[in-house]
This record gives sequence, structure tokens and C-alpha cells, in this order.
Amino acid sequence: AETKKIAVIAGDGIGPEVVAEAEKIIKRTEEVFGYSFTTEHALFGGIAIDEKGTPLPEETLSVCKSADAVLLGAVGGPKWDNNSKELRPETGLLGIRKELGLFSNLRPAVIFDCLKDASTLKPEVLEGTDLMVVRELTGGIYFGEKFRREGAGGEEAVDTCVYNTAEIERIVHQAFEIAQKRRKKLASVDKANVLETSRLWRETVNRIAPEYPDVELEHVLVDNCAMQLLRRPSSFDVIVTENMFGDILSDEAAMLTGSIGMLASASMGEGAFGLYEPVHGSAPDIAGQGLANPIATILSVALMYRLTFGYEDAADAIERAVAEVLDAGHRTADIAVDKSKALSTTEMGDLIAAAI
Amino acid sequence: AETKKIAVIAGDGIGPEVVAEAEKIIKRTEEVFGYSFTTEHALFGGIAIDEKGTPLPEETLSVCKSADAVLLGAVGGPKWDNNSKELRPETGLLGIRKELGLFSNLRPAVIFDCLKDASTLKPEVLEGTDLMVVRELTGGIYFGEKFRREGAGGEEAVDTCVYNTAEIERIVHQAFEIAQKRRKKLASVDKANVLETSRLWRETVNRIAPEYPDVELEHVLVDNCAMQLLRRPSSFDVIVTENMFGDILSDEAAMLTGSIGMLASASMGEGAFGLYEPVHGSAPDIAGQGLANPIATILSVALMYRLTFGYEDAADAIERAVAEVLDAGHRTADIAVDKSKALSTTEMGDLIAAAI
Ligand SMILES: CC(C)[C@H](C(=O)O)[C@@H](O)C(=O)O
Ligand SMILES: CC(C)[C@H](C(=O)O)[C@@H](O)C(=O)O
Repeated sequence: AETKKIAVIAGDGIGPEVVAEAEKIIKRTEEVFGYSFTTEHALFGGIAIDEKGTPLPEETLSVCKSADAVLLGAVGGPKWDNNSKELRPETGLLGIRKELGLFSNLRPAVIFDCLKDASTLKPEVLEGTDLMVVRELTGGIYFGEKFRREGAGGEEAVDTCVYNTAEIERIVHQAFEIAQKRRKKLASVDKANVLETSRLWRETVNRIAPEYPDVELEHVLVDNCAMQLLRRPSSFDVIVTENMFGDILSDEAAMLTGSIGMLASASMGEGAFGLYEPVHGSAPDIAGQGLANPIATILSVALMYRLTFGYEDAADAIERAVAEVLDAGHRTADIAVDKSKALSTTEMGDLIAAAI
Repeated sequence: AETKKIAVIAGDGIGPEVVAEAEKIIKRTEEVFGYSFTTEHALFGGIAIDEKGTPLPEETLSVCKSADAVLLGAVGGPKWDNNSKELRPETGLLGIRKELGLFSNLRPAVIFDCLKDASTLKPEVLEGTDLMVVRELTGGIYFGEKFRREGAGGEEAVDTCVYNTAEIERIVHQAFEIAQKRRKKLASVDKANVLETSRLWRETVNRIAPEYPDVELEHVLVDNCAMQLLRRPSSFDVIVTENMFGDILSDEAAMLTGSIGMLASASMGEGAFGLYEPVHGSAPDIAGQGLANPIATILSVALMYRLTFGYEDAADAIERAVAEVLDAGHRTADIAVDKSKALSTTEMGDLIAAAI
């Protein structure tokens, strides 16, 4: 097969450790399936601030733009939390999304059998939960004009939430297409009883819906969705929503699975280009100790194979290997019941690689 | 005691039924405690649209303004859902908040023993949960400028989120004061890593905090808060946040208690003026059948006595009476295990009145 290029951004905290295991998996799939990859590392986030004076250096952006996909570990940490806005890892995150045109964030929320009990929800409520939040990622209040001004009530801050029809259309089409490949149910979440952007959102969804007659559509208000996720999580299939609501709801959905340490995510642009990363953060408290769980990052590679490269066989093999290793009782410290028997980050990576 | 005036807005759906029971309780406390009230009824919401052509008639506003407090049942229903914006019940709700200056929405989320099992959370996680969301109610993206315009990507919709220092100060002071009377913990929720309004919010909270040295303050990002409410609900005491985040988080918090049908809420203005209403909606599907549970509305009266009138004795008596009736095993259909033994709305109201 053609050689594909992956930009690898290890980032901060446990990022480098988990990404190293994911690269092990990439190598292993080259051997087993005959695929061919080149990887190029780039600085991003806190480490880029320290070494280059900016969270998103130009070189990093060109490495990513010249690649077919990006694998990201994690960024951020207390060290940079009090920096000015331009020198914060989050600013790099928003910048890379915008610059790479990653308008769609896919956040699958699934239950891992071995982590069922880790959820704070009752098992009978959780049973069968398998949903995907499709979050718009380059629009809305995140990217609208922001400023301060003097007003009658003292200093005033302003954020602007803007959506145009084209932005809504592309994410909604994608969500319908994803739903068609799943259980064919789509919940579109908005606040159409208050927001103008939500009214445009809902109109656009309703205009597009007839093109997907096989998908059952419901409109859910965001406050109600926050409740229904708790009350009937298994009834959701695909949820599509704007940037800010998606930020909140995708984290709520991830947490209720109890599997947040194991969840992968994809941020997609036009075509098959995507950035893949674990949902968990940089966990600076356990960084550098070989304690981190690499599974979410390894599963992000599987998502990359499936969504960017169409390498279904390798994607399936990775997911099967993870399931097998977990079924055999192997655990990293975060998910181990008996912590004394916990594997290190590299031991877990080795076992999964061997199982492929 | 001086005669106090309560504006009574029955509203739509089950509103009239539950409000009738709350009025029974008001009368009962007049007899028992010697308090004196006059009540004046006013049209609002769907019924006002039908009868007056607007969800918030001028007369209703003057009735409310001339009163010391407002008791509201519920508004809205499918009948008005497809109306144009000016003819929708929600528009009346936003209007009454703004016109009466109700800048602070207090949403206590507590567990009722008899409803513990109704929660989808595990009992050991829920144990000890007793929190209050203090939501800013007259600012932010709800009330900022909204419009459509033509842009490069077709039609474009805009919502504006605005907060000034004075608006943030008054709600934050109130939240700190409430925390002082409770367990002395305050979580301020924002998205300061992205939004300018959130940065002003956080700066303002930090400037005010030294005035309340006995209150332990934490800043929580809204996405993280949506997760932490699920993971450690009992660790929260008071949560203060802006309008849109408060809409989502207060509903999430209410739902996780499992007691959403029993929760009261208060919307406060300057001074002691307040509007009190159950958290549940107008439930048009069961309206007019005597099936509705009046307890949330009755508890809203207790909240009114406490917060507007300072009638602690009567507030305590109402809350004790509710607990007693529930402890004795009496249930309306929504909370009954054996539905065949369920009480009607008026039977429940009578029992609680008698227990005062
Ligand atoms: C770090 C922050 C800017 C970011 C967001 O809000 O998008 C994060 O919460 C996420 O969801 O990836
Ligand atoms: C009906 C709607 C406008 C309202 C809001 O969003 O404030 C409701 O959800 C609430 O919380 O009272």
C-alpha cells in the first residue's frame, strides 16, 4: 500500500507516554497488515510554549498540513494555566482546529465491560449505551468576536455566537451520514426557544432531513438533553450539536459511561483528514511515571485507520486486541481493582501490540 | 401581621391544579400562624396568548409589580409550540424575568428519601447530595442582541452574550451569602479558557471572594462541571453561574437527584421580591385529570415564606408537613410504586394542609 504520513503531537503531561504506545501499535499494524506509514513529530501546547514561545508553532502547522492525519496525546497543565491568553495551550488547540479546518468533533461514548461498575449510573440504566456526539468545532461562540468595552454597568465583556447556513449544513450532513451507518437515530440539540443561531440550526436540520428518510430525527433542547442523557442514555444513537453545547454534552456523555479514561475522539475536516486524540487530559499528576493508560490513544489510532485511511481490517484488529487484553484481566492502575497487580504504560502497549 | 400580596399565575397544563393546592396551603398557614395574605390571579403564558393575544399582558405585569411575591404554576404546551416568537409562552417567561428584574434563579437540588430509587445514579453516589444552583437570569446570551444577516456562507444568525461587572457582582454576592448560610462552599462555573464574558466573570468572582473569607471557593469549567455533577454530586454546595450554563447545569443537577417532580425554585430580584415556581413543567398530557403532584408547588410556597417574607415558622411547618405525609406512605401517581393506591392532586393537598 501507499505510504501514509501521520503527524504525531505528543504534547504535555502523559501525552508522550501514551503516544509512544500508540506508535508501537502503528508499527505492529505495518508488520501484520503490510500498511506503510511515516511519522513526523511536532511540538504543540505547553512544551511548544516552553521551547518555541507559542503553543502552535508554524512548523507544527505545516507538519500537520503535509500529513494525512494527526495523532495527538494531550496538552496543558498547571504550569501554563496562568499564562496570558496567547501563551496558553488551549489557544493552540483552538488555533489548530481552525487552521486545519477541523469542523467536526466525533466523540463516541461507549461502555467497556470491565468498567461498567466505574460509572456512577445504575447498571440497568447504562445497559446498551452506545452513542456518538457530533460536535461542531470551528464556529459558534468559540470563534465569534470577543471584546471588552465600557458600559453603564462598568466594564462589559462580549462574546458573539455566529453560525451560517453552510457551517450548519456540513456538520448536519455528516451527522446524518454517521447515523445511517449506526442505529439510524439522530438527536439534534439546540436552544431554539431562545437563540437565533439555534433557530437557524433547527431550520437547516429540518430542510436537510428529507434527504435522509431512513434516519429518525428528534429535536431536543439543550437543557432537556442534559437531563435525558442521565435518564435514558441508551436511547440515544447520534447527537449533533453546536460547539458550546457539544463541549458540555460530550463530556457529560463520556462521564456517564464510566469509561472516560478509555474513550477516543476524532476531529474531522473536509475529506478524510482528521486529528485523533484520547478524550482524557494530560494528567500532569501522574506524568512520567509509567502509570498512564495508553488504551484511549491506541483506540484513537483505530479510529484514524477507520475514518481517514479506510483500513477497516487493522482498525478491527486493534479494537479486538484491546478487548482481548482487557478480557484476560490486564489492567493499568487507573482501571485496576488490585492496584498492586497493575501494568505499566509500556507493558499494556506491549500486550496489545502482541495481541494484534 | 401586615397583609402581604401574592400574585398568582396558574398558567397552563397542570398549572391551575397544582396552584390551587398551594393556595390551600397559604390559607392554612394564615389560620395556623396568623399571617395574612391577599392573592390576585393573573393570566400568563399559553392561556394569555389565547385570551389576550400576548403571553405577558400589561395587566399581569402590573399585578406582579404591585405584589410582594409571585407564585407561578407552569406555562407552555404543544398548542403554542409552533407559534411565532412573540406568541410563545417562553417569550413571556423571558419578558417577566426582565420586567420584574429577577436576576437570580435559585434551584435547590435535594434528595427526597422516598424518591432515592428514582434516580438513575447509584445510591452511594447520591448519598448526601444537597446543592443549590444560583443561575444569573437576566443577562448573557439570553438577552443580548440577536439577528440574521447575509454572509459569505449564506444566511447567518448571530446571538450576543454580554455581561457587565455590576451584573456579575450582584449575583456573585448573593451566591456567597447563600453559601455562608449553608456548608460554605461555592463553585463558580465558567468557560474562562474560551469566553471573554467568562474571563470577566472569573476576575469579578476573585475580586469579591476576599469579602467572604469563610467560604471555600473553587472555579470549575462548565464542561468539567457537567462531569463532576455526575461523579461527585454530594461534594457540591452552592454553584453560581451565568444564564446559559445555569440553564443546562440546573436541569442536570435536578435530574440526578431523581426528585425533579418535587423540586421548588425561586427567581429573585433586588430586595426580597421573588417569583416562585415548581421546576417541573406544565405536563399537558396529564392536565385536568387530578393526577398532578402538587408538592413542588407547595414547597415553592415554603421557599416564598422563607426568602420573601421571612416567615421561617410557616416555611418549616410546610416542609415538615410534606415530609410527614410522604413518610406516612402517601403518594401521587408520579411517585407511587403501587399506582392503584395513588392519591389525587387535591387529596395530596388536603393531607399536607391538615398536617400543618
Ligand atoms: C480546552 C478547551 C478549549 C476545549 C474546548 O472547550 O473545546 C476542551 O474542553 C475540549 O473539549 O477539547
Ligand atoms: C423555557 C426556557 C426559555 C427557560 C430557560 O431556558 O430559561 C427554561 O428552560 C427554564 O430554565 O426556565
